[in-house]
Amino acid sequence: MSMTKNNENRIILPEPTIRRLPWYLSYVKMLDNLHVEYVSSTQISKELNVQSSQIAKDLSFLNVRGKTRIGYEVPSLLKELEDFLGFNRHHDAVVIGTGSLGTALMQDHGLEHYGLNIVAGFDVRSEVIGQHLGGLPVYDVSELAAWQRQHRASIAILTVPVESAQHIADLAIASGITALWNFTPCRIKAADDVVIANTSIYAHLAIIYNRMQNTNIEFRQD
Amino acid sequence: MSMTKNNENRIILPEPTIRRLPWYLSYVKMLDNLHVEYVSSTQISKELNVQSSQIAKDLSFLNVRGKTRIGYEVPSLLKELEDFLGFNRHHDAVVIGTGSLGTALMQDHGLEHYGLNIVAGFDVRSEVIGQHLGGLPVYDVSELAAWQRQHRASIAILTVPVESAQHIADLAIASGITALWNFTPCRIKAADDVVIANTSIYAHLAIIYNRMQNTNIEFRQD
Repeated sequence: MSMTKNNENRIILPEPTIRRLPWYLSYVKMLDNLHVEYVSSTQISKELNVQSSQIAKDLSFLNVRGKTRIGYEVPSLLKELEDFLGFNRHHDAVVIGTGSLGTALMQDHGLEHYGLNIVAGFDVRSEVIGQHLGGLPVYDVSELAAWQRQHRASIAILTVPVESAQHIADLAIASGITALWNFTPCRIKAADDVVIANTSIYAHLAIIYNRMQNTNIEFRQD
Repeated sequence: MSMTKNNENRIILPEPTIRRLPWYLSYVKMLDNLHVEYVSSTQISKELNVQSSQIAKDLSFLNVRGKTRIGYEVPSLLKELEDFLGFNRHHDAVVIGTGSLGTALMQDHGLEHYGLNIVAGFDVRSEVIGQHLGGLPVYDVSELAAWQRQHRASIAILTVPVESAQHIADLAIASGITALWNFTPCRIKAADDVVIANTSIYAHLAIIYNRMQNTNIEFRQD
């Protein structure tokens, strides 16, 4: 990722930090379920194999302070992590392309626990338009702009065939979508104020294959 | 990602390069479908917004040479990219955890075009064990070790609940799986010779949310 800060004084978190925070969250959530009261960065470090100084640095972005020799209070750390990551707020999203992956995302209610509120699906195929998937309506993608004027979803999840990806992205942005979660291998071009996150599962496959040919190397994808 | 090379002299591709190669592949595939014969790194650069010197460097790892002023031959570049990325070879995989995401992956025949040959699913829930999903059998996860002695799949796709992830990973590795594609937010611990790729969709969500609060910044996730 390339990232540049604009001239205003907003704090943009380094991406490696944002990537580690969900690990801490998942571990702290488990501790909270076990009614553990305190956790130190040394403990988190041991569990997650991240340097404890790095953990202290990452958590310093949050509104939470550890106590010497005791560590962080588990329930407050849990709440701060969820707040900070945006998992406690609702973000309305649409799925564009209701093939197998799009359908799975519409049916996966687990994403709701992470603040993602999928409200509708869009497709071009007449056999799915007008149907429901995971209890959510599927509309014709040509209706997206009109639909958006009423619903104002902020995120579009792109699970369309790669050859339609750029065109559909343009359409979504023109209709007021501000963030694209792109699951296609297409490199979407858009204005700088559009947030684009690429979950490139094909790239991850390529990485797995490459590493499998080169075993006995230390490797962890962050 | 952290990556260290072992003492033997194997070439481990830098991960940013591996991440970019599928973009080139997707673009070159499109050109090939349009029967375009040659493509220059300048053209690829313009299309994908990657410096052309970077493209030339990335492609130098492949067994393909561009011609001055003409560029790369599209069909050869396509073949070399697919070969190099491992998408032309079959890699047998199992899905462990046949919830909505696991089921979607078992039904998604698109992954076959990227060399991923999912052959079976495993679960702990009696209502799915013995069923078929996407034409593939679902077995009891307790049968994995015995099943592996006959089938020797190399990759396990982990789509289990986060609290079972480490236990299931241990089980998969003990049964001879050499690569884990981890879709859970759990930070899997394993010996260094096990390849682990984390597709952390929750981390990607957190990144989207964080960037949405900070619009007007240039941002692209690679």
